Amino acid sequence: MTWKEIEAERGEMIALIVSGSVEQHGPHLPTGTDLYIAMGMADRIASLPGAGDVAGRLVMLPPLFHTYAKESDGWRGTLNFDGNTLTLVVRDIIKGLFRQGIKKVVLLNGHLESYSFILEGIELAAEGRDDVRVMSVNWWDFIGDELISELFADRWPGWVAEHAALTETSIMLALYPDLVKADLADAGVIPKPLPYKIFPQPQEVRPPSGMYAPAEGASAEIGERLVSEVVKGLVPIIRERFN
Amino acid sequence: MTWKEIEAERGEMIALIVSGSVEQHGPHLPTGTDLYIAMGMADRIASLPGAGDVAGRLVMLPPLFHTYAKESDGWRGTLNFDGNTLTLVVRDIIKGLFRQGIKKVVLLNGHLESYSFILEGIELAAEGRDDVRVMSVNWWDFIGDELISELFADRWPGWVAEHAALTETSIMLALYPDLVKADLADAGVIPKPLPYKIFPQPQEVRPPSGMYAPAEGASAEIGERLVSEVVKGLVPIIRERFN
Amino acid sequence: MTWKEIEAERGEMIALIVSGSVEQHGPHLPTGTDLYIAMGMADRIASLPGAGDVAGRLVMLPPLFHTYAKESDGWRGTLNFDGNTLTLVVRDIIKGLFRQGIKKVVLLNGHLESYSFILEGIELAAEGRDDVRVMSVNWWDFIGDELISELFADRWPGWVAEHAALTETSIMLALYPDLVKADLADAGVIPKPLPYKIFPQPQEVRPPSGMYAPAEGASAEIGERLVSEVVKGLVPIIRERFN
Amino acid sequence: MTWKEIEAERGEMIALIVSGSVEQHGPHLPTGTDLYIAMGMADRIASLPGAGDVAGRLVMLPPLFHTYAKESDGWRGTLNFDGNTLTLVVRDIIKGLFRQGIKKVVLLNGHLESYSFILEGIELAAEGRDDVRVMSVNWWDFIGDELISELFADRWPGWVAEHAALTETSIMLALYPDLVKADLADAGVIPKPLPYKIFPQPQEVRPPSGMYAPAEGASAEIGERLVSEVVKGLVPIIRERFN
Amino acid sequence: MTWKEIEAERGEMIALIVSGSVEQHGPHLPTGTDLYIAMGMADRIASLPGAGDVAGRLVMLPPLFHTYAKESDGWRGTLNFDGNTLTLVVRDIIKGLFRQGIKKVVLLNGHLESYSFILEGIELAAEGRDDVRVMSVNWWDFIGDELISELFADRWPGWVAEHAALTETSIMLALYPDLVKADLADAGVIPKPLPYKIFPQPQEVRPPSGMYAPAEGASAEIGERLVSEVVKGLVPIIRERFN
Amino acid sequence: MTWKEIEAERGEMIALIVSGSVEQHGPHLPTGTDLYIAMGMADRIASLPGAGDVAGRLVMLPPLFHTYAKESDGWRGTLNFDGNTLTLVVRDIIKGLFRQGIKKVVLLNGHLESYSFILEGIELAAEGRDDVRVMSVNWWDFIGDELISELFADRWPGWVAEHAALTETSIMLALYPDLVKADLADAGVIPKPLPYKIFPQPQEVRPPSGMYAPAEGASAEIGERLVSEVVKGLVPIIRERFN
Repeated sequence: MTWKEIEAERGEMIALIVSGSVEQHGPHLPTGTDLYIAMGMADRIASLPGAGDVAGRLVMLPPLFHTYAKESDGWRGTLNFDGNTLTLVVRDIIKGLFRQGIKKVVLLNGHLESYSFILEGIELAAEGRDDVRVMSVNWWDFIGDELISELFADRWPGWVAEHAALTETSIMLALYPDLVKADLADAGVIPKPLPYKIFPQPQEVRPPSGMYAPAEGASAEIGERLVSEVVKGLVPIIRERFN
Repeated sequence: MTWKEIEAERGEMIALIVSGSVEQHGPHLPTGTDLYIAMGMADRIASLPGAGDVAGRLVMLPPLFHTYAKESDGWRGTLNFDGNTLTLVVRDIIKGLFRQGIKKVVLLNGHLESYSFILEGIELAAEGRDDVRVMSVNWWDFIGDELISELFADRWPGWVAEHAALTETSIMLALYPDLVKADLADAGVIPKPLPYKIFPQPQEVRPPSGMYAPAEGASAEIGERLVSEVVKGLVPIIRERFN
Repeated sequence: MTWKEIEAERGEMIALIVSGSVEQHGPHLPTGTDLYIAMGMADRIASLPGAGDVAGRLVMLPPLFHTYAKESDGWRGTLNFDGNTLTLVVRDIIKGLFRQGIKKVVLLNGHLESYSFILEGIELAAEGRDDVRVMSVNWWDFIGDELISELFADRWPGWVAEHAALTETSIMLALYPDLVKADLADAGVIPKPLPYKIFPQPQEVRPPSGMYAPAEGASAEIGERLVSEVVKGLVPIIRERFN
Repeated sequence: MTWKEIEAERGEMIALIVSGSVEQHGPHLPTGTDLYIAMGMADRIASLPGAGDVAGRLVMLPPLFHTYAKESDGWRGTLNFDGNTLTLVVRDIIKGLFRQGIKKVVLLNGHLESYSFILEGIELAAEGRDDVRVMSVNWWDFIGDELISELFADRWPGWVAEHAALTETSIMLALYPDLVKADLADAGVIPKPLPYKIFPQPQEVRPPSGMYAPAEGASAEIGERLVSEVVKGLVPIIRERFN
Repeated sequence: MTWKEIEAERGEMIALIVSGSVEQHGPHLPTGTDLYIAMGMADRIASLPGAGDVAGRLVMLPPLFHTYAKESDGWRGTLNFDGNTLTLVVRDIIKGLFRQGIKKVVLLNGHLESYSFILEGIELAAEGRDDVRVMSVNWWDFIGDELISELFADRWPGWVAEHAALTETSIMLALYPDLVKADLADAGVIPKPLPYKIFPQPQEVRPPSGMYAPAEGASAEIGERLVSEVVKGLVPIIRERFN
Repeated sequence: MTWKEIEAERGEMIALIVSGSVEQHGPHLPTGTDLYIAMGMADRIASLPGAGDVAGRLVMLPPLFHTYAKESDGWRGTLNFDGNTLTLVVRDIIKGLFRQGIKKVVLLNGHLESYSFILEGIELAAEGRDDVRVMSVNWWDFIGDELISELFADRWPGWVAEHAALTETSIMLALYPDLVKADLADAGVIPKPLPYKIFPQPQEVRPPSGMYAPAEGASAEIGERLVSEVVKGLVPIIRERFN
């Protein structure tokens, strides 16, 4: 878009910032998986029946590729900001939007580990202002336990283990099937997850494949159900909160 | 302790840093609840049968009272560091321990919201070193789903809502009953939790009492069970990891 | 790419980081123009005859969209980091690459104003190390005065005025013609550029269109010549410096 | 206290922040001595005849244990923030109090070396505001030369040498006698203090015991006199300044 | 000046901050050359016929000696701030002036490499204020191409190579001839300048003498012409912009 | 000096950094008084009989004009860094010297309030290194109590009140008599100094003249005695510590 097109929309415009990570996602998913998922979900809003009013106001800003993924730092291909750098990145972008009179912002996040640093960036930008509104969303918080039970039943490993596993593989199959090397999705040996963390991270607590749970049973159909659940949940909330 | 006493123990010493928050905890619990819980659990290690070898090596450092509790910033009595300040606080303390040749550190945390900033502080202190070992623990990660089911069954609101509610009230009743004003534990109206965040936080998404779930049914007995589960789980892991 | 594919290439791999800006570029060019140009040039390396050895080793990392473009902050659609944030962003990414054993890095930059902050990020990452090599390139520094004279003769306004003007419009016509709204390229009144800066920037020193010089005479042919000059100049230097 | 109790007092409330250090204090005093002294003095306000109006309004916040004690970094048991970290810690806490409408703050400090960093934290929090009032107190500045002469006469080594020596030992004997191992108070060889500093600190300029002057003659009676002088001086000033 | 003298002038006062570098300047010029040049030019304003009104309002503040000169870091005698330190230095000084009601500021800079960091310091100080005015000037931007052609014709190496070369040597001969060791001005072998940068800087891309172009033909007469061009250009602009 | 001259001396060279403040100093002394005093003392080393070996190795670096003088921020003419900025300034300069192999550094400071921030800058630069040596000196710490008694007897107000008063006025009369407007040295009403600080600083605690004690009796003779005491004390210590 040119700046004039952006200015033309300004009155009703809601800025949408999508964030992910550049991080190992097992042998079968691209390092940008978390971002692809968030972007794909954002794109689906436009094709949701009846979502035209929301889709028409959302303007997607350049995404945040690099975030905070230090747990994967030991695998090649992971890129990282320090936590404070990510906070400053978010703060600066949002403060800049406010300076331009763009005061409605949605952040749609696809990577858990960066969540707190993103929230702090919003806090620092919005502190002391009541003329702005910023919404922060993790897509998985829009997926109900019922759907998880229905889709995965006993195979569900819990969200914390859902890295390069059932949900991410399924959603990638639904949104970007060409980027999934499904035949390589071999989780191999997965160490039992620890209820604590150790620094430096010992080799033996890491799954050599990079997958934190098996992806067996992942499918595009499941992916569609998950994406649909998020998008259907998100649209009315955006409509309500940014009325 | 004097510095000579500390020096005398140095060879086998494991530094223990306990962190909580200064944050509203409903009408019935003190603002320091998260810290009291973590400290109380640490104290219990000494009285666990067979834990003498671990207890004997742990030296509890001055606790981190103030951390990151911005979600409660709208209630009186909450004190906050910026996220980066908390990260620097943790980094400086741990780096200082390393400078003194104290290379075994456990952080026992009682407040979820500060977790990522604490981890980043450890990362910054430990980066590039393989002669140190730092363990980071949230106490609730040591409580199994089975125990939760047994104790609370259908009344369980999920960990995210467990602020000033069932578990914290029970544990405080077990550890520091004098600090609990049980008769004031009226959760009142609790808005349905949102699967997203909005800044600035609207008044109507906050429970006026500060409790995120009811505390009915909380008891010292339940508290004892929870504390015991954590302490029993933690001791063998400290023993193993800092051998 | 998956992390395993990245690891497979690591021995000879040269990481390529492309940076631009999100900034007004007149009524006819998209706000991402500076990044599109740098990315397009990087893509052309693969199709340059005889450049296969260099192209085969370059791995393009996720680009830096947002950088430092405060001079355009008064127009809608410009996004900005503070200078230090940009420096930290560059520092963190490069330090992370070094941690993973990736020690050969090229930054290809398309936006002048962020240049010093990028260099400082490299300085901070590389300080005190002699086992790494980082090259920083502004594409316009590879265009000789002879070519400028041949292509533009008297119409040349100097590089400083080349914002949304002759060279950028031509290169976009060559690389991404669909993104150029050529019929809107009306520079309008352009205030005489000042040999100094004033803060806050007075309205009357800004060209209302956002173009710092006219784009008349821009063409895809000229764009091809410019892109070709850069790519032909860059490839042998990468080959030589990362041998 | 619960948040409701804090809110109830808010109108007249004066927040009191006590700071010390975690630092070697010779073979006979605990590493937390500086904080114990400041806390003990604060507690004494309540029992001072006629000080009820002041004591009733003071609410003691969680103390600052860790501060800036780099001069003692070479002894085991000293914990340190970087100077800027301490400044941010103070700034954040005070800004947070202001956000909650608590605009009257007293800092009572027990450790000289952190003083400038604390003042800067107050400066950063209070800059540009005239609706707040923050008072910063070092306890030793309330002890007059006359009392020093009376109590110590020729044995007075000057305040700079008063680390783990006469005044601190006496005050600890008065306030927390159980924490003093009086029989270990052997200053040993004390190098002549230098009128300058050298980095890194050479071994030979440090007193091996950690005491900067002898503690002989220290007594609980002297301690009582010192504490009383501070408390009697402080109360009317708080009353006057926060009227 | 005393503070009373400064206060007396405050109404019309324009604060003038001169910046340079402490950096190698070849075998014949002092390391402070960039600052000497900027200071000498500022002094000349007073003797320019008809400039009394401007000269009378300018108050020269203590200069910024140290700035950002990392390209010369490999030569002895170069002193450097990190980029962000320089930005904070400029921000703090200007914010302090604003606090004192001094809202008109001119920065006259003699060192290219620090320019972006200085601009960012001004941005951070002036952001969101429209009651202040800050002008930033590089002296070379006031020298027209015509004068360069007239003075140097074919010998002109371009501004980027003008380090310790023709213009700086000439200006120093005009302003501070005693500081120039003209007989040592031997540029020696000068590597062809690269259109890119490499970190760490390889030895072979640096001119051993520290001169980036020969100084042959430099003279006090040329220096006078250059100084005069800058001063004559600058005075009416200051008059106009700070009216 | 040129970089070659600096390099020639490097083997034995001791870098000398002089710091002061830009701060109101009463109606009779220039705002740069603290720096003038430190510089003047440094200059006197060369003329001290028998100090040639020390003077010959000291190379005076560009001074630190601006430092931390927030207590005087309410008077015109005071310039300030934030505390952390000053720390970074000192850290960067010293680290840069170390990078160039210059590992012997003396800081001679003339302004008390910036002392802690300067020490922290040295700490950050020297941390973890034992191949460097940095000495930090406040000139007043070299003046013995005996000399103070002899010169001032009962008129001595204590060092803390010695701002623009007896010692500074005397030393300026000895070193730079032309800069002293002795007839304006009227201290006027001086509020009783408070044993605590209040923010924001109330008007009534400040002496309207800017003098914290009277300067009556100041003389060049006294100034000479003070300067001589410092220089005679400092030279043998530099000789010993940097042997």
